[in-house]
Order: sequence, then C-alpha cells, then structure tokens
Amino acid sequence: MRRSALTSALLMSVALSVPAFANDSVKKLSSDPNNWAVQSGDYAGTRFSKLDQINTSNVKNLKVAWTFSTGVLRGHEGGPLVIGDVMYVHTPFPNIVYALDLKNDAKILWKYEPKQDPSVIPVMCCDTVNRGPQYADGKILLHQADTSLVAIDANTGKELWKVVNGDPKKGETGTGAPLIMKDKVVIGISGAEFGVRCHVTAYDLNTGKRVWRAYSMGPDEDILVDPAKTMSLGKPVGKDSSLKTWTGDQWKIGGGSTWGYMSWDPDLNLFYYGTGNPSTWNPAQRAGPDGKQIDQKWSMTMFARNPDTGMAAWAYQMTPFDEWDYDGINEPILADIDVGGAKRKVAVQFNRNGLAYTWDRATGELLVAEKFDPAVNWTTGVVMDKNSPQYGRPQVVPKMSTFLNGQDVNSKGICPAALGSKDQQPASFSPQTGLFYVPTNHVCMDYEPFKVSYTAGQPYVGATLSMYPAPNSHGGMGNFIAWDASKGKIVYSKAEPFSVWSGVLTTAGGIACYGTLEGYFKCLDQKDGKELYKFKTPSGIIGNAMTYTQGGKQYIGILSGVGGWAGIGLAAGLTNPNDGLGAVGGYAGLRNYTNLGGTLTVFSLP
Amino acid sequence: MRRSALTSALLMSVALSVPAFANDSVKKLSSDPNNWAVQSGDYAGTRFSKLDQINTSNVKNLKVAWTFSTGVLRGHEGGPLVIGDVMYVHTPFPNIVYALDLKNDAKILWKYEPKQDPSVIPVMCCDTVNRGPQYADGKILLHQADTSLVAIDANTGKELWKVVNGDPKKGETGTGAPLIMKDKVVIGISGAEFGVRCHVTAYDLNTGKRVWRAYSMGPDEDILVDPAKTMSLGKPVGKDSSLKTWTGDQWKIGGGSTWGYMSWDPDLNLFYYGTGNPSTWNPAQRAGPDGKQIDQKWSMTMFARNPDTGMAAWAYQMTPFDEWDYDGINEPILADIDVGGAKRKVAVQFNRNGLAYTWDRATGELLVAEKFDPAVNWTTGVVMDKNSPQYGRPQVVPKMSTFLNGQDVNSKGICPAALGSKDQQPASFSPQTGLFYVPTNHVCMDYEPFKVSYTAGQPYVGATLSMYPAPNSHGGMGNFIAWDASKGKIVYSKAEPFSVWSGVLTTAGGIACYGTLEGYFKCLDQKDGKELYKFKTPSGIIGNAMTYTQGGKQYIGILSGVGGWAGIGLAAGLTNPNDGLGAVGGYAGLRNYTNLGGTLTVFSLP
Repeated sequence: MRRSALTSALLMSVALSVPAFANDSVKKLSSDPNNWAVQSGDYAGTRFSKLDQINTSNVKNLKVAWTFSTGVLRGHEGGPLVIGDVMYVHTPFPNIVYALDLKNDAKILWKYEPKQDPSVIPVMCCDTVNRGPQYADGKILLHQADTSLVAIDANTGKELWKVVNGDPKKGETGTGAPLIMKDKVVIGISGAEFGVRCHVTAYDLNTGKRVWRAYSMGPDEDILVDPAKTMSLGKPVGKDSSLKTWTGDQWKIGGGSTWGYMSWDPDLNLFYYGTGNPSTWNPAQRAGPDGKQIDQKWSMTMFARNPDTGMAAWAYQMTPFDEWDYDGINEPILADIDVGGAKRKVAVQFNRNGLAYTWDRATGELLVAEKFDPAVNWTTGVVMDKNSPQYGRPQVVPKMSTFLNGQDVNSKGICPAALGSKDQQPASFSPQTGLFYVPTNHVCMDYEPFKVSYTAGQPYVGATLSMYPAPNSHGGMGNFIAWDASKGKIVYSKAEPFSVWSGVLTTAGGIACYGTLEGYFKCLDQKDGKELYKFKTPSGIIGNAMTYTQGGKQYIGILSGVGGWAGIGLAAGLTNPNDGLGAVGGYAGLRNYTNLGGTLTVFSLP
Repeated sequence: MRRSALTSALLMSVALSVPAFANDSVKKLSSDPNNWAVQSGDYAGTRFSKLDQINTSNVKNLKVAWTFSTGVLRGHEGGPLVIGDVMYVHTPFPNIVYALDLKNDAKILWKYEPKQDPSVIPVMCCDTVNRGPQYADGKILLHQADTSLVAIDANTGKELWKVVNGDPKKGETGTGAPLIMKDKVVIGISGAEFGVRCHVTAYDLNTGKRVWRAYSMGPDEDILVDPAKTMSLGKPVGKDSSLKTWTGDQWKIGGGSTWGYMSWDPDLNLFYYGTGNPSTWNPAQRAGPDGKQIDQKWSMTMFARNPDTGMAAWAYQMTPFDEWDYDGINEPILADIDVGGAKRKVAVQFNRNGLAYTWDRATGELLVAEKFDPAVNWTTGVVMDKNSPQYGRPQVVPKMSTFLNGQDVNSKGICPAALGSKDQQPASFSPQTGLFYVPTNHVCMDYEPFKVSYTAGQPYVGATLSMYPAPNSHGGMGNFIAWDASKGKIVYSKAEPFSVWSGVLTTAGGIACYGTLEGYFKCLDQKDGKELYKFKTPSGIIGNAMTYTQGGKQYIGILSGVGGWAGIGLAAGLTNPNDGLGAVGGYAGLRNYTNLGGTLTVFSLP
C-alpha cells in the first residue's frame, strides 16, 4: 500500500512536472480569435473564426481598410499570421517575411530576406509559391524554396537557426508550411516531378536539430511504420508494406511529395498529412513485376503520425497506382461531426482525385468516400463493403486508365485533370452549419504517358498533358461548394469562371470568404451560397482568406498575386499557354483579367 | 473694292476650308471632364477637373472601388488616361500599355508590350520610369525607354507605326510623355547625365515621319531660334545665343534634357517646356574661356515654341551656369490670373532650383520669381529691376557656389538638393481658388564636383552628392503647398515625412488630392489644406492623381509603385542607400513603410 501510494505520488509528481511545451503559447494564441496564429486558423485546419463583427447582415458594407505590396511578383499562396498587434506577411521566392505593426498603420517593423540561389526556380514544378511561415514561442518558422528551414526572432527578424532539409540540385524544394507541435517543427518537401523520395521531418523548435524523418516510401525503418501497430483499413500494415508494392529500386525515386497543409489533434497526439504522386507520371514504368498495376505505397496516402516519434498510427492510400498525377497532398481538416447517427472525431480530405474522404481520425476507419466534383469519370467510386477484397479501393474506369490505354497513347477526356478537383487551395469547416466550404476545380485533361529516364535534378515527369474546362461546365472551370462530410453530398455549388484556387475562411458571422483567379475577393452566406460582397483586388487570388481583430475591430485579409499551377502561364511569362509542365491552356483567358503582383488587401467595416 | 471683297471672300474661304486638325478630337475630349484625355488633364497642364460629385463634404466617405496590378515592379510615374469607357494604364520599363473596359469591371481589352533590349535599364539615370502615353484620334502614343515612339491603335492595341528618337547606347532614353498638338507628336529625350545633347522633336501623328527637331544647345539652326524674333527678357536673343555661352565643343555633349510634361496654348499656338542641366555636373569643366562662369544656354531654360515649326517664340534661362543639377524640366502650367492688378495669360513653373516663376506666356516677360521652399539658400533671389544688367538672373550666394568653392571640394549644406525643391511631380492649378497646389521636396545636399571624361554611353556626371532632410525641417522631407503665383507667396504649407513625389489633382469639388512616398493617397481642402481623406495604397506613390466618370459616377485613380529618383534605393535594390547616382540616403527610411509593386487604385463614393 505504502509503496503503491508512493509510486502514485511519484507518478503524479512526474505528471505535474512535465514542462510546458514550447508551443503551448500557440495553442493559447490560436484559441483566441483575435489572432490568426496558425496558417490554417487552428491546429484542426478548420479556417473557421469565432469572430462575428463582420456578418451576413453587414458584410455588404465592407471596405478596403489598407493594402500592402509585397514587392514580389508571381504566385502568392498562403496568408498572413497575426499575433497580437503584429502581422507577418510572406512572399513567394525569395521568401521575404515582413513584420507589420498593426498599431501603427502597418509600418514595417522588420524584413527578413533570405539569400537563396535563384537556380532553385527552374526546379519548382508549379511556380515559386510558398504556403506561409508559422509562429511559435516568439519565433517565425519559414521553409524556404531552397529547403532551408529557418527560425526567425519574431521581435527582431534576426535568424536564430537554420537547417537544410533537402537539396535543390536533386529537385528537392520547399513550398509547404511547417507545422509546430510541442517542441517540434514538422516540415515536408516537394519534388515528386523530379524523382525525389519525399518525406516529413521533425526539427527541434529551439535548436533546429533533426529529430526524426519519415519517408513516403521505402523500408519500414525509413517510413516509420510499425508493421504490427500501424493500421490501414482496420488491419496492421504488416512488414515491408511499402517495399512490397514497388518493382526494383523505383521506390528510391518514388515521389510522394508532402507539401500540403498538415493538421494536429493534440488530444490524440496525432498529426495528419497527405502524400503526393509516385514518380514518374508514366504508370508503365511503375508496373509490377508481372506487368500489372501495383500500389506504390505510401504515395497518395493520408497518414496519421505521432509528432513526438514520427511513427504512423494509420495510413490510407486514396489512389493506389496513380495514373493521373492525383496527388494526395490536400489538407486534412479535423472536425467532430455526426456520421451515421454517432458523433465521430473525423478527418476530412478533398482529394485531387475528386473524392472527398471522411475518416475516423483515431483509427483511420473509412466512413465516407464520395465524389465532390460532378465531372469525375476516372472511377465509379470506392468499395465500402468491408468484406470485399477491394474494400477501400477506388474502382478505375478502364477507358480512363492511362496504364491500360498504354504508353504513348493519348487518353482523352479524363476528369478531373492532373491539378485535380481541388489542388492546394484549402477548404474550411464551419461548426455553425456543420458543413465544409470547398474551393474546387472543374477541369479535365488528355494525358499521354511516355518513357522517361531519371537524371538527378532533371524533370522526371513522363507524360504530356492538356487541360481544359470540364464538358457541360457552362463555361465554369471551378465551383465553390458546400459539402456535407457525413453524407458525402454537395449541399450547394456556385460556379466560377476559373478554378477557385484560394483558401476559404468561414466565421461565426455566418460568412464564407474566398478569392478568385481573376482577382475577386468574395463573401457568401454559408447557408445558401448567396454572394453578399465582391471586390476586385489588384491581382488574381491564390492565397487564403484570414481574419483577426486590432483595437477591437475585425479585419479580413487576403493576399492576391496570381500564379501557382493554374496561373503558371502568367507567372512564368509563357507566351504559349500550352507550354510548360502540365499545360494549363484552359487558364490562358486569365490574361484578360489580371496581372502578376503580390498585394495584401485588408477589409473592414466602415 | 471688288477686288478687295473678292480677296476677303477668298481668305475667308481659305480659313473655312482649313481641315480639322488631327487632334481636334483631343481638345474636345479633354474639355469633357468625364474623360481624362491628356496626362496633365488638359493642354494647359492644370490637372484641374470640373467634376464635383466628390467634394469637400463627402470625400471622407471615399472607398476603394477597384484595383489593378500592372504586373511590373519599380517606379510608376504618370497616370492613366480615360477616353469614354476605356482606361489606358501604362507601366515603367518594359512600358506595357493596358486598355481596360470600364463598363465591364476593368477587364483587359488589350495589352501592348514592346520588345525592348533590357540593356537600356543601366542608362536610365533615375529609375525605369515613364510619364505616360497620350491619346489622339484613335491612337495611343507611347515613348518607350529605348526612345522608340510608337503609335498604337487604341481599339486593338496593334502597333501602327514606330520611330526611333535616340540611341540608348549613347545614353539617350525615353521617359517623358509626348504632347500631341494638331497633327504633330512632340517628344523630348533624357540623357543629360550621359552627355547627350538633348532636344524636342515633332513627328507626324499619322505617319511617324519626323517634322522638326530643336536641340537645347548648339547653332541657331539646330536650336530653332530666330536671332531677331526669338525673345528673352524682352530682347531678341541675337545670333549664336547658345554657342556664345559655351567653351569649345562642350555644347556637343551639353545635356539639357527635355523629359518634363509640356503644355500648349492653342490660341497663341505656343507650347512650353523646360530644359535640364548642362553636362557635366562639374561646373569647372564648363567654365568660360576666361575661367569664369558662362551661361550654357539654353540649358535650364523655359522655352515657348510654335508646334508647327518648332521655332522658339521666347526663352528664359532659370539657372545660368548650373552648379547644382537644378534641371529646368519641371512642367509649365498655363493659367489666366491677375498679376499686379491686371489679368495676365501666364505660364507658371516650380523649378528644381526652389524658385517659382510666373511669366507672361505670350511674351516671356518675367512677372514673378520667388522661393517656394523656405530651405533655398543657394540664391538671394532674382533681380527684377529691368534696368539692371543682372535683370532676370538669380544672385548666387558665393558660399553655395560649387564652382567658386572649387573642384574636389565638398560644398556642404546647399539647399535644395539636386533633386530640387520640386522634381517630376506635377503641380495643379485650381481656378476655384486661383492657387497652385504644389508637391515639393525639402531636402539639402553636400556636393563635390570632380573631373570626368566623356565616353559615349557612360555616365558623365562629375559630382558626388549626399542628400538629406533640410535643417529645421521638423523631420519632414517634403511639403504640400498652396501657392499664389500672382504674389509669389506660399498661402499654406503642409509638412510630409518624405518628399511629395506625386502629381496633384484639383477638382471643382474643392479638393486637392495627391500621394505620398510611404503610399498614402490623400485629399485636402483646397482652401486651407485640411486633410479630409487618407488611404494606404499598396506601395509608395510617385504617380499622378486623375479623375473621370463612368456610368455617371465620379472616380479618382492613382498609380502606386514606389521608385523614381527618391525611391531609387528601393527600386534598384540598393542595400546601401548611399550607393548610386545622387545618393538619396535621406529616403532610406522608406523601406520601413513600403515595397515595390505597381498598382492602380480607383476610389469612389459608396
């Protein structure tokens, strides 16, 4: 008894003496809606704000409060952070970060401009974008194009530490936002179009020391799965779950990019992120030893991992043996919603492949998998019968299989196009309606795979594409949709002339706000999608709407600056819109609406 | 009697049959305040609009109606034109012109992008600016950086003709706006910092054929003066009026740039423009044969010329034997005001040298010459006694004479600095108040001349400068002033932290609007200078405010995009603000407020 009591007391004492985690401050800051402390608004990635000063009744009166040019052209993804009275604004390459004094008319407190070799630009597949820095404990964490991860003193702009996460000479680049959990900075990497074997890596927040790295494919010890404990569709993944699904050494140049936004459930202590396409885009080069399809795990996968160790709790592959470049990197959003009559802790993803997935985020159980884009024609859907050997797998329409059609054959009319029914543009979840608000593409493609050899640092694509508006799209290459993730149904859909390539903000004011590629900032009524406000910003918008307060007043901010994959024709100055990777001819019309130029536009009520 | 009547009848018939001039349309368009048909608002250069929807009572309610990124960084001088429902917006190098459909949310109707050799950029002394295209008879006339003058079809954006006005390899560049008078396009040239002998040249509006050219210095036949008929201070200029004021062949590399805005009095059929500094900035190299000062005519001169022939009606040299780079290029503004109790047709100029001149514009009689910047200390003023041999000449304070102080001596504390008490930023005249509204600098300098040799296409400057805020400026490097040109008095003065480098708009609504280098767009009450409205645009403003109506509603537009001489530190990415030509260290603080980026911001009432 005594001993047991002592043990208990000791255990309690240990529990009590656990040091405050370095980023407890972020949890606290991000729970205060006056800040916008995390790129996604919160760790769940909901992009929902409890602020309601600006609401469905008065949003029509919004006016531009102030504007700020970033001094950089090309595509501006991501958005600003606000911590107290300071806003942090970033740019695409060269990845400048500005600290602005919101108390003092957005005067520039400091400017951090990394010195980067511009030779990284040609190895950035889809414009020189950056999805934003993050904040924790007085530091700004920035993932540069050249893969340097730097910690900057949030007060002074001075560099505190810097580590190199990859090698641009091999096609490894940095475009994603880090996620800071406890005392770790977790960051992914881009490069699946250059045969990079991609990964997520954790660095110590205080020192920059590398803690763990989890590759998207390879031996179990590289991918940080426990054959017995890491689950997939209710079963342990088993030994060599990745290696068994590759032929020869192809996994060593296997792709599986990790540049999307990540989310974290602190209670489950799991973080979630998706992996991209297997390299190359030519499926014939990735066929199994028997010449048939083989899964190429864990490309195209939603992973749930423990941020302390990197170990995977569960994995689910959305698009086994990809034949269309349907990267699985899109952001998982965590929400607690009713599914089948029970409250479930879910993760929801709107995948490039046109399917929206709802998982139990503790176990990885697949709850819902339905098309969120009416154009989708590559699959008839996902087998949901747990007793089927095909359980959890999308059923491919043979006519749309670029593998079955064969190398050097132009497979026509595949929907969605390679840039997916949704690409980087993050969706938002509003607990007010229980719905997800999703910026989507409505675009199809012709896809012709061809044999390509691997040379480090050279494009390793192996397919030519032509992308164009979906048939019967009534001229619209995008839709803004409200999605019921419990039922897997579109609640309403609002057509846009171009893809909605901007991240959505929802608020307790009942509004859903986003930008368009022509440059309009729009706010809708969450309930019915009715457009309540519209303003033409200086350039096309691929950044994410965010909100904060300053001096007790609510503001909404968004970066314009056209570019990204959809805007690459403008961003890279292509005179022929069908030039370049994944020719985006359908977006050529953008040049009738907008030009390059990074500007933050901040709105408020009069 | 019969014969006489017949003659009269014939003469009348001749008069009546004079064909409508090609640009009668511009006169008509620019007399309609719904357009902004000329860069300066009208041929008189007043930048005054009769529009009064936006006025002193409601300007506080202005909001941003729409914005448009030009896709170009660096300094955006000039402003848009509006003809009917179409707006024409230009950029610095590469000198893109956009036509925007104002009826259709500013959709881009066409984009004209010249192909220019970027090797012109290093020979542009003071950023890659362009002061705007002009319109006439369905054509847009654009003077490119490489000195190409092009006529563009205003409906289609197709090039109609192109002529080359100079040679960038000799340091000749194009930054100024043309002026179209009758069937002639008159254009100046930049290059006094490269030893260019500058000129104005007329081209045929319909064909681009060169009609006449008038150099700033040289033989009478080159400078288009009539020794007997061209007047200066009430006397004919006489034979070799220019050659006599130069030593040897120095006039052949004599400078006298002509890049400022010009104005035209159609009734007198005279147009007005100023010439810039003599080359080099080292006065010792330009001394007379006796080693004393010599005038270097017609640098630093206000010219009145006939646009049909180019012949000069009168000339007045503001700064004989320049020792400070006080270019005389600033825009002349034509107004009819009372001077000394009589209504006079005057031209008014706010000169770089800190003196404001009022001339009778028909005769060139000097009516007023007074300091408009309290800092001015290089001169005690201009001798107004017509009987004095010094009549019309500024009296130089010996201590401030960089010539008397000598080569390789650093003359300190000269006010104004080389960029003048006013530079390119055009002033406005409001007939409502009879006052001029003048954006000014309040900056001094240290100036050290040194010997320099001439090599074609290489900088031919011959002085090092350091510029800084004027003493007792209370921290302000600029003032926005209201000026009484009849009396030569400041009516009021409003201090700004940086030079006011933006062109002013006045309107019948009683407001005066301009931009600041930090990026604020401001509107004041013309009467008392009270600030009624302020908005932070994306970047520092060196462009000119303008106004128009669309669909019966008044709009005010202004280009932001920091740069120009004052913003060259930012524009050229100088890490040391004291680097570069005419080191503008005093403006280094701009980097705490703003970044590069060209954006048009358009305002309206809600």
